[in-house]
Amino acid sequence: MYALGIDIGGTKIASGVYDDGHHLIQEWHVPTPRTAAAIDQQLVVSYEQAKQMAPIAAVGISAAGNVKADRRTMSFSANIPAWIDYPLAGKLETAIGHECPVIVENDANSAGWGEFMCGIGVGSRNMVMLTVGTGLGAAFVLDRHLYRGSFGMAAEAGHFPMVPDGRFCGCGLSGCAEKYVSGPALEAFAQAFVRRDPVAGKHLVSMAGGDVTAISGQMISEAAADGDPVAIEAFGWVGQWLGRTMAAISALLDPDLFVVGGGLSAAGDILLEPARRSYARYLQAARYRPHAGIVAASAGWRAGMLGVADLAMREISQR
Amino acid sequence: MYALGIDIGGTKIASGVYDDGHHLIQEWHVPTPRTAAAIDQQLVVSYEQAKQMAPIAAVGISAAGNVKADRRTMSFSANIPAWIDYPLAGKLETAIGHECPVIVENDANSAGWGEFMCGIGVGSRNMVMLTVGTGLGAAFVLDRHLYRGSFGMAAEAGHFPMVPDGRFCGCGLSGCAEKYVSGPALEAFAQAFVRRDPVAGKHLVSMAGGDVTAISGQMISEAAADGDPVAIEAFGWVGQWLGRTMAAISALLDPDLFVVGGGLSAAGDILLEPARRSYARYLQAARYRPHAGIVAASAGWRAGMLGVADLAMREISQR
Amino acid sequence: MYALGIDIGGTKIASGVYDDGHHLIQEWHVPTPRTAAAIDQQLVVSYEQAKQMAPIAAVGISAAGNVKADRRTMSFSANIPAWIDYPLAGKLETAIGHECPVIVENDANSAGWGEFMCGIGVGSRNMVMLTVGTGLGAAFVLDRHLYRGSFGMAAEAGHFPMVPDGRFCGCGLSGCAEKYVSGPALEAFAQAFVRRDPVAGKHLVSMAGGDVTAISGQMISEAAADGDPVAIEAFGWVGQWLGRTMAAISALLDPDLFVVGGGLSAAGDILLEPARRSYARYLQAARYRPHAGIVAASAGWRAGMLGVADLAMREISQR
Amino acid sequence: MYALGIDIGGTKIASGVYDDGHHLIQEWHVPTPRTAAAIDQQLVVSYEQAKQMAPIAAVGISAAGNVKADRRTMSFSANIPAWIDYPLAGKLETAIGHECPVIVENDANSAGWGEFMCGIGVGSRNMVMLTVGTGLGAAFVLDRHLYRGSFGMAAEAGHFPMVPDGRFCGCGLSGCAEKYVSGPALEAFAQAFVRRDPVAGKHLVSMAGGDVTAISGQMISEAAADGDPVAIEAFGWVGQWLGRTMAAISALLDPDLFVVGGGLSAAGDILLEPARRSYARYLQAARYRPHAGIVAASAGWRAGMLGVADLAMREISQR
Repeated sequence: MYALGIDIGGTKIASGVYDDGHHLIQEWHVPTPRTAAAIDQQLVVSYEQAKQMAPIAAVGISAAGNVKADRRTMSFSANIPAWIDYPLAGKLETAIGHECPVIVENDANSAGWGEFMCGIGVGSRNMVMLTVGTGLGAAFVLDRHLYRGSFGMAAEAGHFPMVPDGRFCGCGLSGCAEKYVSGPALEAFAQAFVRRDPVAGKHLVSMAGGDVTAISGQMISEAAADGDPVAIEAFGWVGQWLGRTMAAISALLDPDLFVVGGGLSAAGDILLEPARRSYARYLQAARYRPHAGIVAASAGWRAGMLGVADLAMREISQR
Repeated sequence: MYALGIDIGGTKIASGVYDDGHHLIQEWHVPTPRTAAAIDQQLVVSYEQAKQMAPIAAVGISAAGNVKADRRTMSFSANIPAWIDYPLAGKLETAIGHECPVIVENDANSAGWGEFMCGIGVGSRNMVMLTVGTGLGAAFVLDRHLYRGSFGMAAEAGHFPMVPDGRFCGCGLSGCAEKYVSGPALEAFAQAFVRRDPVAGKHLVSMAGGDVTAISGQMISEAAADGDPVAIEAFGWVGQWLGRTMAAISALLDPDLFVVGGGLSAAGDILLEPARRSYARYLQAARYRPHAGIVAASAGWRAGMLGVADLAMREISQR
Repeated sequence: MYALGIDIGGTKIASGVYDDGHHLIQEWHVPTPRTAAAIDQQLVVSYEQAKQMAPIAAVGISAAGNVKADRRTMSFSANIPAWIDYPLAGKLETAIGHECPVIVENDANSAGWGEFMCGIGVGSRNMVMLTVGTGLGAAFVLDRHLYRGSFGMAAEAGHFPMVPDGRFCGCGLSGCAEKYVSGPALEAFAQAFVRRDPVAGKHLVSMAGGDVTAISGQMISEAAADGDPVAIEAFGWVGQWLGRTMAAISALLDPDLFVVGGGLSAAGDILLEPARRSYARYLQAARYRPHAGIVAASAGWRAGMLGVADLAMREISQR
Repeated sequence: MYALGIDIGGTKIASGVYDDGHHLIQEWHVPTPRTAAAIDQQLVVSYEQAKQMAPIAAVGISAAGNVKADRRTMSFSANIPAWIDYPLAGKLETAIGHECPVIVENDANSAGWGEFMCGIGVGSRNMVMLTVGTGLGAAFVLDRHLYRGSFGMAAEAGHFPMVPDGRFCGCGLSGCAEKYVSGPALEAFAQAFVRRDPVAGKHLVSMAGGDVTAISGQMISEAAADGDPVAIEAFGWVGQWLGRTMAAISALLDPDLFVVGGGLSAAGDILLEPARRSYARYLQAARYRPHAGIVAASAGWRAGMLGVADLAMREISQR
């Protein structure tokens, strides 16, 4: 059996044909179009190309945004404004004459499932993936199944409340976790630190051409890799809150593994060591229970494409 | 098929024989002995009595404390000091000559499962039960299965971190949810209120014979039922934090139903209305998603006995 | 005896000649120049003009920014970058041939002293003025003297820490009071509210032409005056934090009067009533002590000019 | 000129006769009686004894509790229940036939003034004394005068709000500074730490005979002096909050000196070094201003007796 996995990213659409042993038969990319209609068209093209390579039994689409519990409809996406209650799966099924079923999955869920099937998460029973990038995304694999909640809105770790009356979030609440654990949070902390102490922060200030507000996550990552103490402290601050987020999640879900992905995970132990220390510090009954592992994601950018192809195959085998 | 459910409570051990349609054939109680050995003995007696009534295919025991992931061993209990890594199920199985299998389940999980099977939770897909009593317990039914975590420590909502640097908890951490949502939290708030404003609080003070530290949950409940504004405000404060706890849980688990049990749930809407308002206030994307229901538990004290009997039957049907 | 008070504002420089009974002899304005040198020149012009009207015994200058303890030097100003360790008083004294002494005072202190001498603060013994505008400024009159601290940095209420790990402030710290009590805080709260609930916030959204980020303090003030509940709630939120700030100040300074000035004080009781309630709620031993009054400033924009003229007269009478 | 200073402590009443050069002529102690009437009697005895030694021009009494702004009346005391609106000075004046005037001062204010006149605070202009013991007391010397506020309730640093929704305080509020900076806070932190990690805390547990709740401030101090890392961390935690309290006070009062007294100050730099680091970390504009000194009190237990004798002498010289 073969499935087509399509990952609609911010800049490119990646397509991959997989067999039921998770082997990648072929993959290809195109730039992501800007409109919903053009994306629909591109999905059809991808399917037609895939059909040349293998008999496709199911299609899985990974996309950023909220996917309804039916796994067919985008309810909202920050990137594609037209995706409000948008029947993404249905449109493709109609366009390809219902030759095979299509499912849609949130990008964090797809990547999390990919890590669980073929990445660092293999062998875990309850795995939490946290994606630390422009925001804080999450995927939960519970008792070896992807958990989606009642309305498709589970695992919104980014808007988990960390600090009462804390930093305002774009969602309209205060103190959401992603205001403390994300690339923008890393930048905000570093910029605040430098405002307080420009002497200690002079390396970052000079990288930013003297403009404190221009200090970027990229610069902080480079400076941290070079050993700059302020940049390392900024990662330590994010890592500390990441560990607290994990401890809070453990109080509810008691997973055996946390997988950290997203842009900031490239910093490796500069981020993860503070997270591990903070996790041990804030975990309830820490002395009396096994601790979950805290590791970096390993499946790379293909995790989402692979994950959603596998989810599509499972969907048809359950019908 | 028949199963025996045994609920080891703080004051009594309740036993009930159920058929596989959840009908209660017979039930009986005895006072809870103080020692582990005496409890073991009583469990054997219960089993022998049950055998007189019906052929017992499985035994389920509900107990307060941490149960290991094997569902056979108590790792810790605040009530019975000897229950440290204590093989509660194995002892009973040996004593009854392995006539039938025995499982052990945490009391919150047992009651939650009982509500899901035969109480207010029937028909839910993802249900969170919160038990507000001397502490804050929880049970999670996710995708219609009881969720126990990797190490048997899931759903520890009481030690979920609500307030950084908040009130010290007996567990050694700060700001745990049960310091804000529980009977002792209700008392602490009311006592603090009365210290600030003895005039407004004079009804509670007089109920407590003039001793502010003697104001009890029972008194606050009675006063609230009588319309005392300070008592109602105390429930409102606990309810507000209960709603925030629910909003935090929804960010992760997106359930369709919250069931509130435990002693404080007897206050009904005096507790639940503030919780509903606060839930709506702190829920992420509240305008753009269905809200979970927030209701009082309905299965009463038999929920745990019934729930654990059902879990025991399921256990053997999966073997 | 006559003194010249000069108030260097963001848009205009106001000058006034006062006699020692606080009577205004004459006043005049010019636009505020952009450079330190041009301002110096304008100060000389003001002095020459004043001399035509009366024999000037002392000059007081009110300016936004940090003034050193010597009351002669600007250590920092957000508006005039060149004012770093800038001898503002000395420059003017030299330029006018040392005909009379010059003092410099922070604008919040000048206005606070003006309210104390000739405004709502007359008769108070310990008065705290809070200026709620683009930031949160303060002035302390303690035992009937203006209190300036050891390094000229007292009464920085805007950077008083209210919320640990709270909102990042431009100063580089987190949770500063002016992130909760100021015009920008009012806007941030209203925008967050509207993001959460666009239906309730539709009046503000329509005032802002559909752009949530364009909702301004001016719009919120107008909407509140028209009875819009979201705008009133936004003022209520700021007022609540204003009251908490006052309660914190009372724990240290125990004043008899809080005077609220700045742009937001124009909202009157829409801001002050929530502040009074919150003050009473968070004041320590509230039942056992007299409460400070909480009133709007009454001396208007001339408070600073008058206040600094009076301070200059006092300076010379103490020499 | 001679004055009598009387310090009514929890266990003893200390009396001292001073000349106007702050020289101690003679001192003596008696146990503190339990009732208000017996204390009144003892004060007369002390005065009669003092008269044998020198002509007494004024009497100052230092007492724990709230003293009204008239400096004559106790409005409240935790130790002596009868001291509610109790005219302590008037009673003594009447009893001694109005031979000399009597003033009453709060014990923290008396000790702070003693440090300012004859201890580590000599030469300071704006000095804040913080007394870290069973609670957190404070005294403010501002522009070289003792500051008492409008209602005698200034410098209540113990009930300064540090953490919104933080630990409940006996005063009825939440998050008061003395729940984080005091002997009981030290004990609470150490006990919580030990509950979390009994292995690391085994030294403290064994000192307390195995009973975690019996770990006392005395034990923690001894263990810290012996280098026990958990005890040192407990002092570090209190010190961290002490530094944050100081930073908050500096935002308002900008003192040049913090003097730390009370039982916990005996730990010296074990407490003060973390406080200094935390002060520098949380001080607004820390890079752009002089920092206040942070030092241990030096005048010892006589500070209160001396301070109130001096205040009494000042009182009569101002009449």
